[in-house]
Amino acid sequence: MPDRPAAVAPVVVDTSRSPEARLRPVPLNAIRLTDKFWKPRRELNRNTTLKAQYLHLEKTGRLDNFRRVAGDFDGDFQGIYFNDSDVYKWLEGASWALATDQDAELAEMVASVVSLIERAQEADGYLNTYFALERGNQRWTNLRDMHELYCAGHLFQAAVAHSRVTGSERLLAVAQRFADLICATFGSRQGQIEGAPGHPEIEMGLVELARATGESRYLDQAAYFLGARGRGLIGGRAYHQDHVPFREADRLTGHAVRALYLSAGAADIVAELGDSELRRALNRLWDRMVSRQMYVTGAVGARHEGEAIGADFELPNARAYAETCAGIANVMWAWRMLQITGEAAYTDVMERALYNAALPGISLDGTTYFYVNPLAQDGAAEPGSGVHQREPWFGCACCPPNIARTIAQMPGYLYSVSDDLIWLHTYVANEASLSLPNGLKVDLVQRTRYPWSGQIIVEMLTPGEYGLNVRIPDWCQGGDLGDPPTLSINNAPCRGTVVPGQYATVRRTWAVGDSVCIQLPMNVRRVKAHPHILENTGRIALMRGPLVYCLESADHKGIDLRDVRIPRDASFETTFRKDLLGGIQVIQTNGFVEEPAGEWRTSAYQCAPSELRRNRRPTELTAIPYYAWANRGAGAMQVWIRED
Amino acid sequence: MPDRPAAVAPVVVDTSRSPEARLRPVPLNAIRLTDKFWKPRRELNRNTTLKAQYLHLEKTGRLDNFRRVAGDFDGDFQGIYFNDSDVYKWLEGASWALATDQDAELAEMVASVVSLIERAQEADGYLNTYFALERGNQRWTNLRDMHELYCAGHLFQAAVAHSRVTGSERLLAVAQRFADLICATFGSRQGQIEGAPGHPEIEMGLVELARATGESRYLDQAAYFLGARGRGLIGGRAYHQDHVPFREADRLTGHAVRALYLSAGAADIVAELGDSELRRALNRLWDRMVSRQMYVTGAVGARHEGEAIGADFELPNARAYAETCAGIANVMWAWRMLQITGEAAYTDVMERALYNAALPGISLDGTTYFYVNPLAQDGAAEPGSGVHQREPWFGCACCPPNIARTIAQMPGYLYSVSDDLIWLHTYVANEASLSLPNGLKVDLVQRTRYPWSGQIIVEMLTPGEYGLNVRIPDWCQGGDLGDPPTLSINNAPCRGTVVPGQYATVRRTWAVGDSVCIQLPMNVRRVKAHPHILENTGRIALMRGPLVYCLESADHKGIDLRDVRIPRDASFETTFRKDLLGGIQVIQTNGFVEEPAGEWRTSAYQCAPSELRRNRRPTELTAIPYYAWANRGAGAMQVWIRED
Repeated sequence: MPDRPAAVAPVVVDTSRSPEARLRPVPLNAIRLTDKFWKPRRELNRNTTLKAQYLHLEKTGRLDNFRRVAGDFDGDFQGIYFNDSDVYKWLEGASWALATDQDAELAEMVASVVSLIERAQEADGYLNTYFALERGNQRWTNLRDMHELYCAGHLFQAAVAHSRVTGSERLLAVAQRFADLICATFGSRQGQIEGAPGHPEIEMGLVELARATGESRYLDQAAYFLGARGRGLIGGRAYHQDHVPFREADRLTGHAVRALYLSAGAADIVAELGDSELRRALNRLWDRMVSRQMYVTGAVGARHEGEAIGADFELPNARAYAETCAGIANVMWAWRMLQITGEAAYTDVMERALYNAALPGISLDGTTYFYVNPLAQDGAAEPGSGVHQREPWFGCACCPPNIARTIAQMPGYLYSVSDDLIWLHTYVANEASLSLPNGLKVDLVQRTRYPWSGQIIVEMLTPGEYGLNVRIPDWCQGGDLGDPPTLSINNAPCRGTVVPGQYATVRRTWAVGDSVCIQLPMNVRRVKAHPHILENTGRIALMRGPLVYCLESADHKGIDLRDVRIPRDASFETTFRKDLLGGIQVIQTNGFVEEPAGEWRTSAYQCAPSELRRNRRPTELTAIPYYAWANRGAGAMQVWIRED
Repeated sequence: MPDRPAAVAPVVVDTSRSPEARLRPVPLNAIRLTDKFWKPRRELNRNTTLKAQYLHLEKTGRLDNFRRVAGDFDGDFQGIYFNDSDVYKWLEGASWALATDQDAELAEMVASVVSLIERAQEADGYLNTYFALERGNQRWTNLRDMHELYCAGHLFQAAVAHSRVTGSERLLAVAQRFADLICATFGSRQGQIEGAPGHPEIEMGLVELARATGESRYLDQAAYFLGARGRGLIGGRAYHQDHVPFREADRLTGHAVRALYLSAGAADIVAELGDSELRRALNRLWDRMVSRQMYVTGAVGARHEGEAIGADFELPNARAYAETCAGIANVMWAWRMLQITGEAAYTDVMERALYNAALPGISLDGTTYFYVNPLAQDGAAEPGSGVHQREPWFGCACCPPNIARTIAQMPGYLYSVSDDLIWLHTYVANEASLSLPNGLKVDLVQRTRYPWSGQIIVEMLTPGEYGLNVRIPDWCQGGDLGDPPTLSINNAPCRGTVVPGQYATVRRTWAVGDSVCIQLPMNVRRVKAHPHILENTGRIALMRGPLVYCLESADHKGIDLRDVRIPRDASFETTFRKDLLGGIQVIQTNGFVEEPAGEWRTSAYQCAPSELRRNRRPTELTAIPYYAWANRGAGAMQVWIRED
């Protein structure tokens, strides 16, 4: 590992000096959003979401748990044994939010939480408020279930974020003391404990800590934990990704968030160590996920039972688990794979999951959350529970701070750099000032209404010789899309370089004011699912640009959305409705409603004559982006719509 | 309640003196099976299944738990806290098996288990080997979760069976002592505990105990337990059917077996008390179940999570839970509804569930069991577990003795009597000697190859004036079935009385040797599912007579069954293959295999052009009865097949 850098800058996943990463990240504060989609969301996140979450942390005893260990609170441990992780995740999110904006109130909250954490650390570096005091002698006694290492990983990520943003090393020092204890405690040497975390997370945390401190032992420890799996140390179950060594696994298994955090951590290890066997394992896991285990939204995790990934093609809609945290974890893994490889296939999934698997996790007003993200809902209340809606908090509150840190980090996903190249991954109107590895500093402006429009104008403000790697999304290909994507410079088309699902490279000597125009077709796409995804037989999903759409009952009064059919020859119109759901492009078309004939009232099964009786009437349909659903009260929703 | 009968006869659910039951059951030993389907199964059940289960009870400590309380075994309680129930269920099954057959070895096992139970009873009548000795002070402390009343209910059912079959009152006395303690303990009077069982079962047990002993207080106690639900006494959750009073419920909810046992118990209460509000509640629950919550097999319970009933129309195939016990519970409930009402709609479901939801729970060799009954299986092993197959036993072993007692009882489901009528419910070759309530004793013979053939000849051996109520199954109607069902007497057709889904009544003065011929069309039926059952869109199930069929990989080497398509105009041939799977009628047809095109290898979602590329080849298809699947090694299976 190289020496520790003198200058500290906010960076989301710092691979700047990772020997095996092709791409380098860009500091958060190098980018200033100017758009109407993400900028308001980041402001809401800082002003409302993070501050409301702080109050939840306070109200639910999560902060008192630290005070208790620090000696300032007289009472029992409150909540679930892994609740420290929510505090750390919140702290990471709040730190990233402060990377680009001044906010004295939030900064004060951050400072007070850092102090609390500092004071709750034990003399030997151990830090976990559940296993403190009266449970101090139970440390490390159940690595599989009790999430001590998981909490530690979140501490490390928070500490790195806090240090990069504030320049303060206080929390980083806390993290290092704990990490040093963990390094001393776990391993194969005499007197060490052989073990692996039941819930991965520490792998990413340790690698980031290594990057932030220059201490390679944290990287080695991450590699140790990855290698410790599959040896039966934590029970040998696929649920915990412990049934085979990670590098021999042929698919993601078990608890979805765990599987994805582990894969993201492994990608971090590949970025540092370039282990080709591990890289092959990651490719194998990735390929199977995108072809058999992932929802059209980029969500992962089919089963409520165990919050788990199911069998290949087991992707039910109403019963999707699709935990918000798993959608976020998919973004995190995809981002790391992109940094290693520079391949646009990862960017495609990152973008898909960001807009359609992570973002639906939070309400438009920034105050309520989905833990579970079904792709269909019939709108009927379940006896004893009710209709699934977003909630302000959860007993197990992993998702709220996870979505908050993701929104806070969002600008970090826009660019990477490598040598003399600037990589444009996903598009948002912004102004950026990017330092290339070759020493050049390039200023540029992006003007676009993405994700509503496929036109992106990039204006170069720095003259010189450098290149742009412009992502052409895979969603620009196939189907009845009409015009192909195009790229032009100063209104002159670039030929031959524009392939959907790849980065288009433009190298030239730029003059100030040169403009690149990227034109991505944003026709409405009828998407079909693999024939083995049984619930989607005969159904299509509508997509436009990076967004998955859905039908919601608020726009279709008196219609059971399960009865809606879209004709094969339907044409679609789209309109921007700035009054609706914070401003969205809606898709409109003419379809049919075909209600089940009367004979179905008495039996769910009928002997099939050549044709059942048809009750069909025409209807106008309005589809909205899936991320915006469930913001108009409880109701029904369908992503996959019957085609006819 | 009338006085206790002097003569004891084996009867499955004795409604003989239930004031509100239209129908009366027939003693098991009044029927002698002569067929090749159920008779060999009952013999296998007695010779192999029940004896092997006894060894499991012994090996797993379930009998030692009784010995331990009796003072004969020095060791800890073994297994799960409700393991006593498995012993009772086995005892009930073994008793019913002995109702019709001599078996000294089995009788000896029964006698020894009865002694053990007797000796494990405490002085005050309490009997539960988990809450004995060191846990004696924890009795009744957790009615919701700890299943003491559930175990008691199974004891009562076993005691009634044992008493009816053997004439011995030893176990009945044990049951009464415990029931008396329960009656004294639970209720609304001063000093009593207000409570309801978290797992229903005791309701049926108490009603049967009331019938067997003539003691109406057991009936009152059953009614108390039913009425205690929905008052929040056990937590108020829909999972435990405690979110609303039973008589206000609009659907079955929660744990499927609990919901169905409770409904069966409520039907028993209606049979005795004729409560019209309760009867309406049962009708409401039933109608919703058959129209929205039941699999085509008669199985109930969509969710692995909580072994629970899902939302309306939530009926996934590969992920069906469809617990064998729930299929059996459905038979039990349907039987009780039939006894109350005399309506063939209940017989239809009873038969459907018996053949297609209960029977698949046991292997053809009588030694292994399904707990979970998927309606589809892709044949791939789940990492860390493997392909779903029947197993010789389970830690939670409710299903094996449940299927054993069901097979032992089977002849009891063939007939009922009322006034001067003999009811023929489902058909099996047999000789019967039936005592009618009007005092007449009628001997008759059924000759049929049912369920393989729809021709049933009933020969009357007793002259006189009495009637037959002949069930015409609902599956004789609709679709492309060709000839309607017919009924003829001495070769002369009876006109106007034969309606599918109803009982056809034939009253006349019979002469010895008169013969009734029932001809039920057994064409292959293409069954469709309600459009809201999303996985079945575009798919059909094949049925013939009462049997649901499936495709199994053993008959289709090299084909992924998910790719099979049956043309809309396919014609079907059926052949009896006596060499195959114990002798089955197979369905054969010509279909297609359409493998997913290559583009699906890299992504589960594709932008849909007007037509995706087709890889289609013709293939011969062989469908087997669903109950017979998974008897030729691990493999794939599909009930619902894509129609094209």
